[in-house]
Amino acid sequence: MFLKRLRLKNKADRRLKAGHLWIYSNEVDTQTTPLKSFEVGEPVLVENSFGKALGTAYVNPNSLICARLVSRDSEQPLDKSLLVHRIKIALSMRERLFEKPFYRLIYGDSDGLPGLVVDRFDDVLVAQISTAGMERVRDDVVAALNQVLKPKGILFKNSGNARKLEDLSQYVEVASGVVPEVVVLEENGVSFQAPVMEGQKTGWFYDHRLNRERLRNYVKGKRVLDVFSYVGGWGIQAAAFGADKVTCIDASSLALENVHANAELNEVQHKVDTLEGDAFEALKALKESEERFDVVIVDPPAFIKKRKDIKVGEQAYRRINELAMRLLERDGYLVAASCSMHLQKDNMIDLLRAGSRHIDRNLQIVDQGHQGPDHPVHPSIPETEYIKAIFSRLTFQ
Amino acid sequence: MFLKRLRLKNKADRRLKAGHLWIYSNEVDTQTTPLKSFEVGEPVLVENSFGKALGTAYVNPNSLICARLVSRDSEQPLDKSLLVHRIKIALSMRERLFEKPFYRLIYGDSDGLPGLVVDRFDDVLVAQISTAGMERVRDDVVAALNQVLKPKGILFKNSGNARKLEDLSQYVEVASGVVPEVVVLEENGVSFQAPVMEGQKTGWFYDHRLNRERLRNYVKGKRVLDVFSYVGGWGIQAAAFGADKVTCIDASSLALENVHANAELNEVQHKVDTLEGDAFEALKALKESEERFDVVIVDPPAFIKKRKDIKVGEQAYRRINELAMRLLERDGYLVAASCSMHLQKDNMIDLLRAGSRHIDRNLQIVDQGHQGPDHPVHPSIPETEYIKAIFSRLTFQ
Repeated sequence: MFLKRLRLKNKADRRLKAGHLWIYSNEVDTQTTPLKSFEVGEPVLVENSFGKALGTAYVNPNSLICARLVSRDSEQPLDKSLLVHRIKIALSMRERLFEKPFYRLIYGDSDGLPGLVVDRFDDVLVAQISTAGMERVRDDVVAALNQVLKPKGILFKNSGNARKLEDLSQYVEVASGVVPEVVVLEENGVSFQAPVMEGQKTGWFYDHRLNRERLRNYVKGKRVLDVFSYVGGWGIQAAAFGADKVTCIDASSLALENVHANAELNEVQHKVDTLEGDAFEALKALKESEERFDVVIVDPPAFIKKRKDIKVGEQAYRRINELAMRLLERDGYLVAASCSMHLQKDNMIDLLRAGSRHIDRNLQIVDQGHQGPDHPVHPSIPETEYIKAIFSRLTFQ
Repeated sequence: MFLKRLRLKNKADRRLKAGHLWIYSNEVDTQTTPLKSFEVGEPVLVENSFGKALGTAYVNPNSLICARLVSRDSEQPLDKSLLVHRIKIALSMRERLFEKPFYRLIYGDSDGLPGLVVDRFDDVLVAQISTAGMERVRDDVVAALNQVLKPKGILFKNSGNARKLEDLSQYVEVASGVVPEVVVLEENGVSFQAPVMEGQKTGWFYDHRLNRERLRNYVKGKRVLDVFSYVGGWGIQAAAFGADKVTCIDASSLALENVHANAELNEVQHKVDTLEGDAFEALKALKESEERFDVVIVDPPAFIKKRKDIKVGEQAYRRINELAMRLLERDGYLVAASCSMHLQKDNMIDLLRAGSRHIDRNLQIVDQGHQGPDHPVHPSIPETEYIKAIFSRLTFQ
């Protein structure tokens, strides 16, 4: 197969050699290989400034990240055979580390497939493509998934901001087989239904699995508040792990309908109630009515979406967690989660510290959780790490 | 009770207000309250530059950290009653989060008791005092532990470098009751004996408990290498979790004798063997004899003891982990641990990345572990956090 060449400037190969997969447009020798000469999504051979081949990539001439490496083998472009190979390697890790077929099967760059995410709900796969280069091999993605996993159905949930940066349209489409409105899944031995068509992202967030598992010992016989509950990932697991009473807060009525359905699925409906509304307002109202909880979980949507929002976003994290701390019983536990890639863990711990000092409490960090192994972190690409879950206890001085 | 006052310089109270507990000698208003006027270990009332009381502390005029806050209540010095109170608060967390009485009961500053560490082996307690202020109330410590826990025996393992900084002597002494040479404990459902008198530190390292628990899915049916095994904390758990074959390497024959004893205790002696020697040399020899493992665990003693050793120590971490990577089967897993407080997690990940690139492998970080909840982190005192365990998979490009 003949591939056009994309030549890098002098020394611009350093980052790739150190493990990274992205090429920025200012790193390309555009005199020798003008970006405009490439089609959107076109596969290329990447070479250094001396013409030495570094591997294959795909190009988007209109994007700041103008190319992403897909293989360090210069004979291997992104095609069905590479997709099958990478899916098998990703699958072998999930099958070793998870007992049941519910997990993120493909996590983009970290699984050597930039621009592709696939969540597995047993025999239903929900995929998200975020780059033009991956969109171009869309049919190969479907064929490769069908070959390796033989699912009943594959859904493309091709929406989200990342696609806009690549000039890709937004669509939701059944790519193969049959996909139900709602799928059933199991996490840490607890059953859930998730709205794959109408819900957020792929319909479910597998990324906090290990952190939710840790709730077990914290919640037994306790009163638990789940703030930004979505369909009840944390709250229903707390109830199933033996909490006495669980309250879930969310602004979406669809999410809370699913909380009730998930409570029934696990026969814990008698101890789960819901509050629809803005989380900040709801926490203030609970404080005023002197409600108290033994454990409060705060897992908001990303308050920091872009680097420029860091300051305002950190203040929002600080505010919501301090409101949560005020609702804790003596020596109660706060589980503060964040899915903002731009919120550094040290800064998150520091804003929790500041909140605790502001209400004259002493904070002990008892556990620190990360995304699970089905969301592996690529050590050269900090953007692949985003989940944090800080478990802490608040004591008096 | 009358306490002498220790006055801080202008604005030197800021760090304490932000949650910290330490006072450095250059923060004291030594004109008003000369450090030489205090006895070693003397309890004091700390006040800001305007004479406002901030809480009680104890002093060591000969130490860089010349005082440590013990209470923000100015009426409450470090005495038996405060010790009993703090021990009870610490115990309530451990009893909630752990099923059995094997854990670090008191973790110094993080549990509001600077200079005191206590490990619990059911009815035997092993304590370490590291400051003159805590040494001064040694008898109250024993009395408080006896009152709250009624143990069969309390051992002071009062050795280690921290004591030298405070001009304290090194001794091992049964402070109360009867203490055996070797204690029995359980971690993650696996039984161990630990040499409390002769072994390292308190005889056992509870800090990696949660990280060892995660071995479960990684090791089933696999061949495992445990480098710097000590008495087999990782290796014997791997065997008990279903590994096919486990090899433990350590330079200490006492440690390896305990590995064999611990293998028998769990009836896994047929699949555990040991190699006595220097870890670096042993890994090179294994490589030469073409031995391969599915999982390699590298949990060395602290290679970085002081800030000035960071560079050399990081090179040692890099070297030992790269040697370990070379012993991995295709798509094998490396568990890289560190107990060096001075090794930053990001630097640790970066040296693993560099090692993997050097041998042309791709590293996926699948899990990141910390010290367990019985070693809580104090959010104002970074020195309270030291444990890291990075689980990764090495794949071909």
